[in-house]
Amino acid sequence: MKSHTAYILVNTPHRYDIVNLTSKVEAEVKKSGIKEGLCLVNSMHITSSVFINDNERGLHKDFLEWVEKLAPYSKEGYDHNLTGEDNADAHLKRTIMGRETVIAVTKGGLDFGPWEQIFYGEFDGRRDKRILVKIIGE
Amino acid sequence: MKSHTAYILVNTPHRYDIVNLTSKVEAEVKKSGIKEGLCLVNSMHITSSVFINDNERGLHKDFLEWVEKLAPYSKEGYDHNLTGEDNADAHLKRTIMGRETVIAVTKGGLDFGPWEQIFYGEFDGRRDKRILVKIIGE
Amino acid sequence: MKSHTAYILVNTPHRYDIVNLTSKVEAEVKKSGIKEGLCLVNSMHITSSVFINDNERGLHKDFLEWVEKLAPYSKEGYDHNLTGEDNADAHLKRTIMGRETVIAVTKGGLDFGPWEQIFYGEFDGRRDKRILVKIIGE
Repeated sequence: MKSHTAYILVNTPHRYDIVNLTSKVEAEVKKSGIKEGLCLVNSMHITSSVFINDNERGLHKDFLEWVEKLAPYSKEGYDHNLTGEDNADAHLKRTIMGRETVIAVTKGGLDFGPWEQIFYGEFDGRRDKRILVKIIGE
Repeated sequence: MKSHTAYILVNTPHRYDIVNLTSKVEAEVKKSGIKEGLCLVNSMHITSSVFINDNERGLHKDFLEWVEKLAPYSKEGYDHNLTGEDNADAHLKRTIMGRETVIAVTKGGLDFGPWEQIFYGEFDGRRDKRILVKIIGE
Repeated sequence: MKSHTAYILVNTPHRYDIVNLTSKVEAEVKKSGIKEGLCLVNSMHITSSVFINDNERGLHKDFLEWVEKLAPYSKEGYDHNLTGEDNADAHLKRTIMGRETVIAVTKGGLDFGPWEQIFYGEFDGRRDKRILVKIIGE
C-alpha cells in the first residue's frame, strides 16, 4: 500500500468565501502515483468546510446566503461567543457544508461525475488555514 | 491491497425520491472478495445524495418535507437559476443530506448497526444518474 | 495492509448530549500500529452523530439549540412518529451533524489541525449505543 500526504494553504480575502481546490487535489493524486484508492480532503479548521458541488458562481452566492439564513452571524445569542469569539455562526455554517470529502481514485485520477468539483468553504477567513489531502491505495 | 469499483445506475420516476441501495452495495462487497477495508458510496451528481438512515417510509416522507422547508424549490430567488436551471434547491437539499458515506467492511460484510441502511436521495430526478461504489482493503 | 476494528460503547444520561471521543479514538490508532492510513469513526445508530469540531462547552450548547430549531422535537407532525416512535427529530438532527468522519493517520497519529476534536452527538440517548472505529493502512 502507498500513501501520500499534502497540505494546501489558503488565506481568503473575505470572511466568507468559496475557493476551488480541484486542480490542486488532482495534482496531488498524480504526485502520489496511486492508481486505485481513496482520497480524503478535509479542512484542518473547525470554521471551514470542504465539499463537492458545481463550479458555478451564482450557486456559490446561493450557498453563502443560504447558510447565513440557517446559521446567522450574531455576536449575541450564541454561548460560544461569550468566550470572546464572534464566530459561533462559522462553526454551524461549516457543519451544514461538511468538514471533509472522500473521493475514489480510479485509473490514476479522481473518479468524478460530469460536474463534480472540490471546494473549500471559508466562514471565518482573512487568516492562514490548511487543507489536508491524504491518498492511500496502490 | 485489493480494490473494486462499480457504478450503480438510477433513474427515479419522481423529481424527489429516496431509493434503497443496501443490497446492491452488499453485492459489490461480496464481488470484491475484500474481508477488511473501507467502502465508499457516493452520488456522482451534485443534486443528489447518498446517506445512511432508517428503512421506514414515513421517515423518508419526513426527510423530503424537511429539506423542502430548509431549502425550498423556487425558480426565483436563487442566482443559480439565472443560468436557466431551476434546480438550485436540489444543490442545497443534497448538501444537507450529504454526498457520500464511508462504511467499514469487516469479515467480508458491511459493518452496520441494527438499523443502518444505505439510501440514494434524489432531488432532481427523472433522468439517468450514477452512484459510485469503491471498496479497498484485503 | 493492516486493519484494526473497535467498538466504543456509550450510554448518555440525557436524551440530547455531546461526548468527546478523541482520546478513545487516539488509543485505537496506537493499538492498530498503523503509521499511514485512514481512520473511519461512525455512529452505528441512526439517531446519533459523529462529528469534528471545537471542545468548547458553550459551542456544544449552541449546537444542541441550533439543531432543535432546524429539526424540532414533536410527537406530532412527523410521519415517522405514527409508527409509535417519538424520535423523528433525532433522525433529522443527526443528518445535520453527520453520521461519520474520516481522519488521516500520519506518522502514527490522527493528523489534526490545532482545534479538531472528535465528538459523539446523541439525539435519542439514555440507552446503549455503539460507535465504530476502523483504521486501515500500513
